[in-house]
Amino acid sequence: MTAEEVRAPNAHQRKRHGGRSANRRRRSTGVKQLPPKTFTNKFPHLEFLSADEIESIHENSLAVIRDIGMRFMHPEAIAILKKHGAEVVPDTDLVKMDPELVLEHVAKAPASFPLRSRNPRTNLIIGADEALFCSIGSAPNCSDLDDGRRPGNFADFKKLVRLTQAFNVLSVVGGYPVEPIDLSPNTRHLRAIQTIIEETDKPFMLYSLGRARILDGLETTRRGLDITDDDFEDAAYAFTVVNTSSPLRLDGPMIEGMIEMARRNQPVVITPFTLSGAMAPATIPGALVMQNAEALASIAFLQMIRPGARCIYGSFTSNVDMKSGSPAFGTPEYVKATLASGQLTRRYKIPMRTSNACAANAVDAQAAYEAMFSLWAVLLSGTHLCKHAGGWMEGGLVASYEKFVLDAELIQQFAQIMEPLSLDADGLALDAIREVGQGGHFFGTEHTIARYETAFYSPMISDWRNFGAWTEGGSPQNAEHCNRVWKEILADFEAPPLDPARREAMEAYTKKRAEEGGADSLPRGEYA
Amino acid sequence: MTAEEVRAPNAHQRKRHGGRSANRRRRSTGVKQLPPKTFTNKFPHLEFLSADEIESIHENSLAVIRDIGMRFMHPEAIAILKKHGAEVVPDTDLVKMDPELVLEHVAKAPASFPLRSRNPRTNLIIGADEALFCSIGSAPNCSDLDDGRRPGNFADFKKLVRLTQAFNVLSVVGGYPVEPIDLSPNTRHLRAIQTIIEETDKPFMLYSLGRARILDGLETTRRGLDITDDDFEDAAYAFTVVNTSSPLRLDGPMIEGMIEMARRNQPVVITPFTLSGAMAPATIPGALVMQNAEALASIAFLQMIRPGARCIYGSFTSNVDMKSGSPAFGTPEYVKATLASGQLTRRYKIPMRTSNACAANAVDAQAAYEAMFSLWAVLLSGTHLCKHAGGWMEGGLVASYEKFVLDAELIQQFAQIMEPLSLDADGLALDAIREVGQGGHFFGTEHTIARYETAFYSPMISDWRNFGAWTEGGSPQNAEHCNRVWKEILADFEAPPLDPARREAMEAYTKKRAEEGGADSLPRGEYA
Repeated sequence: MTAEEVRAPNAHQRKRHGGRSANRRRRSTGVKQLPPKTFTNKFPHLEFLSADEIESIHENSLAVIRDIGMRFMHPEAIAILKKHGAEVVPDTDLVKMDPELVLEHVAKAPASFPLRSRNPRTNLIIGADEALFCSIGSAPNCSDLDDGRRPGNFADFKKLVRLTQAFNVLSVVGGYPVEPIDLSPNTRHLRAIQTIIEETDKPFMLYSLGRARILDGLETTRRGLDITDDDFEDAAYAFTVVNTSSPLRLDGPMIEGMIEMARRNQPVVITPFTLSGAMAPATIPGALVMQNAEALASIAFLQMIRPGARCIYGSFTSNVDMKSGSPAFGTPEYVKATLASGQLTRRYKIPMRTSNACAANAVDAQAAYEAMFSLWAVLLSGTHLCKHAGGWMEGGLVASYEKFVLDAELIQQFAQIMEPLSLDADGLALDAIREVGQGGHFFGTEHTIARYETAFYSPMISDWRNFGAWTEGGSPQNAEHCNRVWKEILADFEAPPLDPARREAMEAYTKKRAEEGGADSLPRGEYA
Repeated sequence: MTAEEVRAPNAHQRKRHGGRSANRRRRSTGVKQLPPKTFTNKFPHLEFLSADEIESIHENSLAVIRDIGMRFMHPEAIAILKKHGAEVVPDTDLVKMDPELVLEHVAKAPASFPLRSRNPRTNLIIGADEALFCSIGSAPNCSDLDDGRRPGNFADFKKLVRLTQAFNVLSVVGGYPVEPIDLSPNTRHLRAIQTIIEETDKPFMLYSLGRARILDGLETTRRGLDITDDDFEDAAYAFTVVNTSSPLRLDGPMIEGMIEMARRNQPVVITPFTLSGAMAPATIPGALVMQNAEALASIAFLQMIRPGARCIYGSFTSNVDMKSGSPAFGTPEYVKATLASGQLTRRYKIPMRTSNACAANAVDAQAAYEAMFSLWAVLLSGTHLCKHAGGWMEGGLVASYEKFVLDAELIQQFAQIMEPLSLDADGLALDAIREVGQGGHFFGTEHTIARYETAFYSPMISDWRNFGAWTEGGSPQNAEHCNRVWKEILADFEAPPLDPARREAMEAYTKKRAEEGGADSLPRGEYA
C-alpha cells in the first residue's frame, strides 16, 4: 500500500459515510509492513557512565546485599539459599550474601539462548545483537478513539493479541495485553494462554502468580505447542517476568514462578521495580544501586535453583513525578538509567530487558516523544528484549489500540534505519549524476524509475500530503491514521492454522482444572 | 514552576473563562526552563558507514567535481576559480577541478571558531563538542492553534523572534523565522535585521540574496552591535547559509553572499539542496555523493576567496515521497544521511550543520516522532549547528508556535540527558537504602525531601496527571499545553536593553538606504 492509498480511503469514507464508524464495515486493502525478519541491532552501545562509575554501582549494590539484605518471602527460597551458603537472619526471611557468593552464582547465567514458538520457522535468540520487541502486557484498561477507555475484557484481549500476531516487528507476546477481567479469576490464565496459542505463533509470557498458575501455564504450553520437557531443555518457548517487591523484597508467588520455570529451563526476567523517589532513592545512581542489588540477589537465587538457568536482567528504573508521586516514563532520567543498565548487564554478560515506556494519556506528541526517548535508549543500550513495545500508555494502565500502531510504526522505522546502504555502482549512482548533469531533475531518470517503489521507506501512518490536500482530507491528527490502520489489520486477520487435536488437548486440560477449582487465589504481583 | 503549577492555570482558565482566548489576557506565572548554558554534546559519534564506505563516497564525489563539474553562475566566481587553477569549460560557467586542487583548498577551512553576539557574556564556539540550536528560518507561513495557518507577516516575525530570545536552549537566531511579506521587499532585510538585533542578544543569520542585501546586513550588524571589521576578524557574529541550486549549480546571488561574507571572515554554511529522488539520485549513497561534491567544490571556492575562511558543511540530504514528489523529513533515510554526513565532515575537520526537520502538518504524534528521529540523528552525528531547531513544520513551509515549544521541550530533555550523574555518597544513597530497608518507601526520607525540587527534570508541556484528573482538566492534547506555554512566554517577554544610540544608527542607515531605493530586486534563493 502506497502512502497515497493509505490516505485515500480515509478521506473517501469521511465524505461518503460521514465519519469513523463507516470504517468498521470496510474491508481493508492491506497495510504495508516490512517483511518479518530478525531485528539485528546495529547501533553501537552507548557507554553513558565511565567504567569506574559502573564499578562503583556494582560494588555498592553488592554491599547492599551483604550488609542490608533482601527478604525472600517463601520457605522454599530460604531453604535453597541456606543450602548454598547464604546467611539468613534467624527467625526471619531476611537474606544476606557475600559478594563472592553472589557473583559465583550470577556467573552461571547464560549470555544467550534460543527462543522458539509453535511456528517451526521461528528461530529467535535472546542475547547477542538481537533485539526482540513484545506487545504490551498487564494493562488493567484498554482504549481506542471510538469507544474510549474501558476496563480490560476478553474481547479486547483477543483483538490486541491479534494485533500482536499481525505486526511483523513484534516477535513476542509480552503477557496479557489487557487483563480479561470478565473471565473467572481462577481459570482466566488457562483461557488466556490457550487464546494466545490459538491466535498467534509467537513466543509468549506466563505469569508468576503462584505455583498453580505457572504449572497450568506450562502444561497448556506443552499441549498447545505439542512439546515435551525435553523441548523445554532445548529452547525457551515461554518466559516469565518476576518483579521484585521493591525495596529489597521478593514475594512468595514470584518465587514459586521462578522455581517452576527454572526447573524446566524456561527463562525468567528479573525486573526490580525501582522507581526513583518511591521504591528506590531519589537519585538515579541510588536507584541503579537498588536495581542492581535486587537483580543480582534474585539472579543468584535463580542460579541456585538450577545452575545455568536462563534469565534476563530487567531494567525498569525510572523516576516519579515528585509533585504527584505518580511514575514518569520516557524521561531524561529513564534514558540515563536504561543506558547505564545496558552497561551493567554487559558487565555480567546477561541478556537485558527494558520497556518502550510512556506516561501520556493521549496518542499525541507527548506519547510519541516519550516513546522515542524510550526506544532510542532501548536500542542504544543494547536491549535484547523490549517489553511493552506496542500499545503501552499511562505508565502501563492502558493498552491503546492507536498507540499500538504508532509503536509498530516507530519500530519499523528503526528497523529501516538498521538496513545497510548499498554502495555498489548503482547505489553510488555516478551514471545517473552524469546523465542529469547541472540543473536537471532525477525524477524521470531510469535510475529513479527502476527503484520507484522500493527506494524509500513507506510509512503506515505518516501524513505527507501538502497542507491543502491534508485540510481537504479533514485535517486528520496522526492518531486518526493509527485508528484506521488497526481496523484494517483486524479486518484482514487470519489466525495461523492450529492442529485441532492440540486445541482439544488444551480444552480438556482447562475443563479438568476448572472442575478441580482452578488456581488457588494467590495475590496478584506488581505489574511491569 | 512545578508540573502542577504549569497545569493548574490552564484547567482553571478553561473553567472560568471557557476557552483559549482568556489565556491571552492572563499574565504568566513564568515557564520553568533550564538555565542558559552551553550545550556540550556528550554522545559518542555514531559511525554508521564503514571507513571504506566513507572513502568511497569521498572519492566518487571528487570524481563528480573532476569529470562532471559544477556551474558557478557568476563571472567573479569564474575569475577566482580560474586564477586558482580550476578548469573552466570555454564560454560557459562550468567548472571542473582536480581532487588535489579541491582538497588543498578544503584543508584551509578552520575546524572551529568563536561565535559572539551583542551580549558580552556570549562566548559560543562553532565546532569541538558544542551543539548550537537555531530557531526556524525562512518559513513562508506561520500558524498557531488559535488563528490557524496564515502567510508570514511582520507581527508574527517579531513574536517568533521573541520566542527565540526567550528559550534558553536556542542559542542562535536561524534567519527570519517567518518571511515578513508585509514589509517592502527592497528594505525588508534592513527592518528584519534591526528587529532581530533589538529583540535578541543572540548571534543571527544574514541572507545571501545578492551583494546589496548582504552588505546591508553586515552594515546593520556593525551599527547595531557597535563593532568594526576588526571585531569580525576576531569572531563570527552573523552567518549566512548558501544553498546550492542542486544538482551541481551555485547561483549568482549566493556567490555574491559568499564573497562578501568571506571577505569579512563571517561564516558561510554551505548546504547542498540534495533531496534524494528529486535534485539528487534516488539512493542515499548517490545523494551523499552529490551532496559531498557540491559541498567540497563550494568550500574549495570559498577558501580561494579567502584562505581560512570560516565555513560550515551543511547536510540537508533527505528523501522525497516518491508518490507525490514532496520532500519527507525525519525519515529513516534522513537519519542515515545525517549520520553519514557527520562522518564526512569529521573526515574534512569542518563543523557540521543539520536540521531538526519534520514534514508533519499538525503538532501531533507525527511531528514529535519525525522531530525525534531528526534530533537523535543531529546529536549522534556530532552536529555543531542545528538549524530549524525550533518551530519547523511541513518541511519548512510553516513556522508553528506550538511546534516551537515542543522543540524547545525536546532539546531541553536532551540537555538534561547530557547532564552527568553524581556518583558521590549522596548520589549512591547507601544511607537512604539502609534507612528505608525492606518494603519501605523513600518518599518521606530526608534524602528525598532534600532533593524534592531538583531531583528530576520537570517538563514544560508533559501532562503527567492521572487519567481522571486529565479528563477533568479537559483532556488536553500536548499541543494545547504548547499553546499555553508560548503565550505565557510572550506575555513575560522583555527585550534585552539596547543603547538607544545603536538603534538610531541602524535607523539612520535604513532611512538612507530606503531613499536610495533599497536592495536590488534580486531573485530569492532556495530555502533551507
